Formats: sequence, structure tokens, C-alpha cells
Amino acid sequence: MMELKIVGKKAEAVGKASGVLYTASTAKKNALLRAIATHLSRESAAIRRANEKDLANARHAGLSPVLLDRLTLDDKRVAQMIAGVKDVINLPDPVSQVVGRRRRPNGLVIEKVRVPLGAVGIIYEARPNVTIDAAALCLKAGNAVLLRGGSEAIRSNAKLVEVIKKSLMDVDLPAGCVEFIDTTDRKAVAEMLKQDRFLDIIIPRGSQKLIRYIQKNSSVPVIAHGEGNCHVYVDGSADLRKAADIVFNAKVQRPSVCNAAEKLLVHGKVARKFLPRIAERLKSAGVQLRGDARTRSLVKYAIPATEDDWYREYLDLIMAVKVVRDVGEAIEHINRYGSHHSDSIVTGSRPNGERFLREVDSAAVYVNASTRFTDGYEFGLGAEIGISTQKLHARGPMGLEELTTTKYIIHGRGQVRK
Amino acid sequence: MMELKIVGKKAEAVGKASGVLYTASTAKKNALLRAIATHLSRESAAIRRANEKDLANARHAGLSPVLLDRLTLDDKRVAQMIAGVKDVINLPDPVSQVVGRRRRPNGLVIEKVRVPLGAVGIIYEARPNVTIDAAALCLKAGNAVLLRGGSEAIRSNAKLVEVIKKSLMDVDLPAGCVEFIDTTDRKAVAEMLKQDRFLDIIIPRGSQKLIRYIQKNSSVPVIAHGEGNCHVYVDGSADLRKAADIVFNAKVQRPSVCNAAEKLLVHGKVARKFLPRIAERLKSAGVQLRGDARTRSLVKYAIPATEDDWYREYLDLIMAVKVVRDVGEAIEHINRYGSHHSDSIVTGSRPNGERFLREVDSAAVYVNASTRFTDGYEFGLGAEIGISTQKLHARGPMGLEELTTTKYIIHGRGQVRK
Repeated sequence: MMELKIVGKKAEAVGKASGVLYTASTAKKNALLRAIATHLSRESAAIRRANEKDLANARHAGLSPVLLDRLTLDDKRVAQMIAGVKDVINLPDPVSQVVGRRRRPNGLVIEKVRVPLGAVGIIYEARPNVTIDAAALCLKAGNAVLLRGGSEAIRSNAKLVEVIKKSLMDVDLPAGCVEFIDTTDRKAVAEMLKQDRFLDIIIPRGSQKLIRYIQKNSSVPVIAHGEGNCHVYVDGSADLRKAADIVFNAKVQRPSVCNAAEKLLVHGKVARKFLPRIAERLKSAGVQLRGDARTRSLVKYAIPATEDDWYREYLDLIMAVKVVRDVGEAIEHINRYGSHHSDSIVTGSRPNGERFLREVDSAAVYVNASTRFTDGYEFGLGAEIGISTQKLHARGPMGLEELTTTKYIIHGRGQVRK
Repeated sequence: MMELKIVGKKAEAVGKASGVLYTASTAKKNALLRAIATHLSRESAAIRRANEKDLANARHAGLSPVLLDRLTLDDKRVAQMIAGVKDVINLPDPVSQVVGRRRRPNGLVIEKVRVPLGAVGIIYEARPNVTIDAAALCLKAGNAVLLRGGSEAIRSNAKLVEVIKKSLMDVDLPAGCVEFIDTTDRKAVAEMLKQDRFLDIIIPRGSQKLIRYIQKNSSVPVIAHGEGNCHVYVDGSADLRKAADIVFNAKVQRPSVCNAAEKLLVHGKVARKFLPRIAERLKSAGVQLRGDARTRSLVKYAIPATEDDWYREYLDLIMAVKVVRDVGEAIEHINRYGSHHSDSIVTGSRPNGERFLREVDSAAVYVNASTRFTDGYEFGLGAEIGISTQKLHARGPMGLEELTTTKYIIHGRGQVRK
């Protein structure tokens, strides 16, 4: 119980510090980020030592090789964190940007300007690099941060936060600008979700199970990095060589991420020509295919796809395949079964392409490109804090702008309302 | 129980119809709005008859004169509803507006375009005109609507929805584009808050008690029309004649609305000169003043303000007054006790004005103007569906744009990720 009280206290400290960051200049925020990069570099040996303790515990607890890899901070990853912080320094500061301006007939000048959100809570799992990546983005956008990382990474995270605290002191900003919940008690998450008095938003990073739990139980508004059940639809008029390259890239290039394709829809007209060819190529890359009846008649090695398959995000070398009548059926299928993340049509028909872009209701809709491009860097937004599949506030890759809100500022000369 | 099942069914119908509205053209949506205006005009006698039944029941139940007035639909108010619908026809359609465009080095063209939110739930209280006003805005932005009005207005609302349904039929749109929950069972609201499978957003209009209940219990994202504890701060360098006009207008012109001022802060330097004068003028308009010690020493008729007063929204002819040291103390007070709605400084000092605009963290911050201007029409956005004091998605007056989300559409020529 005593341990949990600290969560409210830290949330309050973050809320208070957010008032100071609210008006911090770009120069000040960049000085802070430079200090963080410097201290990370100086302390890299100590960071690795802390991380080795986490790794030893994790090995002892029998963590899987994949999770052990995610937990590891070697020299290369520390260098990547430092490079990431430097990237954020170079991004334009969204705060004070004027996004709209009107002069009214009564002479009032009404401007809409970007301002920080305030206090941001981040709840994340194994990867300790999120501590630095997320904090850097939040701080650049003028937000204070309350961090709650995975218990396996607690020593690494504590060390990284120590580095941030030193940097805050260097540039004379309050320590509360970044606070870290250093208990492994799982109840600390539930406690954090109650801090709507102090926190303006919570961003969860991690498994869908964690994210759903947070969405259901948080009194603080949540912006969630959603599931990616992404589709590629190969239209009847598609250039089949391009189509094969796009499908292969979307499925195989990095199957464990949310913008990888999980489903392939193929127009009936080209199924016989296209499917055996792409199936061969996917098979050689180790992809398991699950198909509807028509697909299985053309691809012998495909196993049957169940109704449940059409809804699933595999994050693995698995792809479900369906033959459709036309672009209309493809759109209907995607809007019904998809997760509204990223979907692509490969087509030679301009009207079909435009119809797909208009009618598919997803965060990112493509014509003739791989779904793998849904990403802050690829979209030219700089680093991202996640990819939202929600419709409110932010949709798609969330960069610095999505970590701000706006306010109206109005210049008058004594106007009153009639 | 049977009655409550209908809520889920209607939410599902609205969710389904939203798919049709998602791609409806501006011409189609405007034709619908014209049909609504025509039917409202034709059926105005029947609307008044339904409303008279509601009024008779309400009188019988002993509703207060203020609530009876809100419930009343006379000829003038029907005409206002029709004029409101025509205004919405003339507003630009936000759907398909391109809000950003980038060409990437790899040749991908990435556009961010506005699209409808989808299915919107509106929960409102006594005023039946909200049925038409809110539906018109939602429909113009391409959204389907599930309406839940106050039980006192159930006959008026049912009649108005009948008018909308006729209009939907006229232009061949599905009846599910607008559904109305016609049970007075209070549990219907709780049922509506569970429809996250079908509804994308819920917008509550009404008392703060209703809004807080909805925010706390909804699994659907909520955008709330917040409380307005608005301040006017009269700086040491203010033109005191302008200051008096602004304070008087902000407090007295329409005290029952959220952008009316509830608090007056006065710089110590001008308190002796300004306070007795404005107090006299406010008193003559029937305003009760509540003051801190310094105010009470200057204004004999002011009663003591308690700590609780600084937090309160009166929506009445009451104003609490405090003498402050300087602009810094004013800003601190506003950020601490205010509701982040609308706050104004009256000053002759440009630096103090700019500091106030920068540091006060509210939806609308003014220099030398009345807080009463925080309004969709006054800001030039056209009609508004509410004023958000939240930070996510929408902040300040919410017009058509705030009833949309965005998606990324990407044109490629076969690009795959390296």
C-alpha cells in the first residue's frame, strides 16, 4: 500500500512540472536533450552494467530468447538511443506553431496555436530504449512524463531515468519533468490509471492485452497503439510483378510489426495466374498460407482459413488468402474484418484505386505500395511515439504534433458582445 | 429489459448507416438538409402540437419556468431551427479536405484528408431544438447519429426525428442515419455508453452532473462540453473604462452561459480606483459580489468569498473578486482554480498581454476583449455542437471540422520498404 502512494505523488510532481515545461523555450528543451545525449554517452558503461543485472535475472526467470533480445542494451543500442535523441533535437518544435488565423468583422484576431498537452503517462513493456525515446519526444513537445516500464527492465530503466534527472538538473528544470515508477508491483499500473487529476493522457506501448486493460480501466484519456490486421488487395488490372513484390515485402520484410500484411485478397480474374506464383515465393520464405476454398484449389500447400483467421493479427510468418469478386467485395471485407490500420490495393485502374482510397476506412490507405510504410520516419514526421488506430485526436503515426493540443488566443481592442 | 435491447439494435443500425454516409457527396448531404428544412416548415403545426403535449405533462409535473421555457417550441423557435439547418447547408463540407501533403524521396505521395468520424451518439437534456441542430451538423460532416434526448421532450423529439426520417427517405439514404431512443427509461443512457462496437464518439450536452456521469461510465470516447469558470483580470496598466465595459459585458450580458465571467481579478495598483466604480455598475444590474478582504474593504456590499468560490461556476448574477499583486499572481490563480475555458486580461502593457496569452492554459485566452466571444459563430466556424474544455481531439468551440477525423492516403508506383 505504501508503495502505491508513491504513484499519486509522482503523478502530482509530473503535473506540477508540466506547468514549467508549458512555457519552456525551444532552446531550453534542446539544451536538455543535448544534456541527455551527453550523459547517455558518458554513462554507457554503467547503463550496460545495470542492463546486465536485468538480463541475468531474466535468464534466471527463463525469459524467451525474443524477450531477452528486446531487453538487451548493448553498445549498438545505446548508440541508437543517443542518435534518436539527436534526431529529436533536429525536429521542428511544434509548440507555438500557429495552425489557423482569422480576423473577424468586429476586429478580433483569433489564432489557433499549438501548446503542450501537459502531463503524459507512458506505460510500456520490455524494451528499455522506450524510456529514452518516449521521454525525448514528450519533452520536445513541452510535456512532463510519468514512466512505467516493464518489471524485467527495472534496473536499466532506473539508470536511464537517473541520466535524465542529471540532465534536467544541468539545465535547471524541475526533477518532476520526468518521473519513473520504480516498483514492480503490478497494482502500480491500476493506480496510474486513476491519476486524472494530474495526467492529461496515457499512452500504452505493448501487447494488445495490456492496451485493452488500460483502455477499459483508465480514467485518464488513452491513445492506444492499435492492432494491425493489414490487407493487400490485388485487383484484376494489377501489374502482377509489382503485386508480387508488394505482397512479399508487406508480409516478409518484418513480420513481427503492426504494419506487416496479414491478409491477401485477390481478384478472381487473376487468381489462377497470380496465386500459385506468389505462394511459391512466400513458401520459400517460410510463410504458412491459410486460404478459402478457391485459394486452396490453386495452392495445394495452403491450409483452410477459419472465420476467426480474417480477424487475426498474426505478427508472424502466416498469411490468410481469399479470392474476391471485385474491388467492392475487397473493400467490404477490409472494412468488416480489418483493424483499420493500413491497407493497400495493387491496381492498374485509376478509378478502382481512387475508390479504394475513398471507401476503406483505415488510418493509412495505399495504392500500389507496401503497407510497411506506415511509420513516422517513412511519412516524414520524424520519430513516432506509436501508431494510433483510434479516430479521436490522432490517427496513424503519432509524432511531435500529436503530443500537443491547441488553444485559441484572441487579440482585441476592448470588444464586447452585443 | 426488452426495451433496453432496442438501444443496442439502434446503435448497430447507426453504425451500419455510417458506412453509407462515409462516402456521401456534399450534394447529397445538402439535399438531405434541404429536405429537413422543407419538412420542418410543412410540419410545424404538428411539431407544435407534439410539443404542447410535452409542455402539458411538464406543467403537471411542476417543472420550473426556466425549464418550461427551454422545452417550448413556438413558431419563432421552429423558424430558428429551419434557419439553423440552412446555415449548415451553406457551411463548407469538411470531408475530403486535404490538410497535409508530402512527397517523399522514394516518390510516395502522402496526403492527410478529413473523413467522417462515423457514428456519433448525442445525449442531451431539455431543449428539443438540439435534435435538429446536432443532427444537421453531424449529417453534414458525414456522420450517422444516435440521439437520446430528455424525457420531458420525448414527444417533440420523436416528431422531429420523424421529420428527419422522411427527409432521409426523400433522398434515398438509409433510415439508420438518424436513430432516436424513444424510451424514457434512464437505463437507456447506461446502455448507450456500452455501444463501443458501433459508436465512435459520444457528445453529452447538459448539466455537469450528467456529463461527469457519462465521462466516468462510457466505454465510447466522450467529448464533453465543459464547465466555464471564466476570469477577467484587470491589469495595473488597463484602460479602466474599457476594463469596466469588458467586465460588465462578460458578467451581465448573458450570465447563464459557460463563457460568462465568474471571477474578477484586479491589480492592487488600480483596485481603489476601479473596484468601487465597477461594483456600483454591477450592483445596479443585480450582481452579487463576493470578495477577498481587500475587495471587501473597498466594496462594502461584497460578502466574503470562500475558498470554494474560486472554483465555482455560478451561471448566475454572482461574481467573486480578488485583488492580486501582479499579472503573475493572476495567471497562477487562473491556472489553479479555473476550468480552462475562457479567460481575459485587460491591459495596456503588450508584454503583460503576451505573457498572459502564453501562460494561461485555457481553450480561449483573450487580451482586451470579453470572454463572451468563445462561440462557434463568433469565431467564424459556423454553428457549434459544443465547447470542449478537454485537450484531446477538440479544444474550444467544436464545429464541423471537429466532427471529423483524418486518414492518410498514399499514392505509390510499386514502392516496397528496404
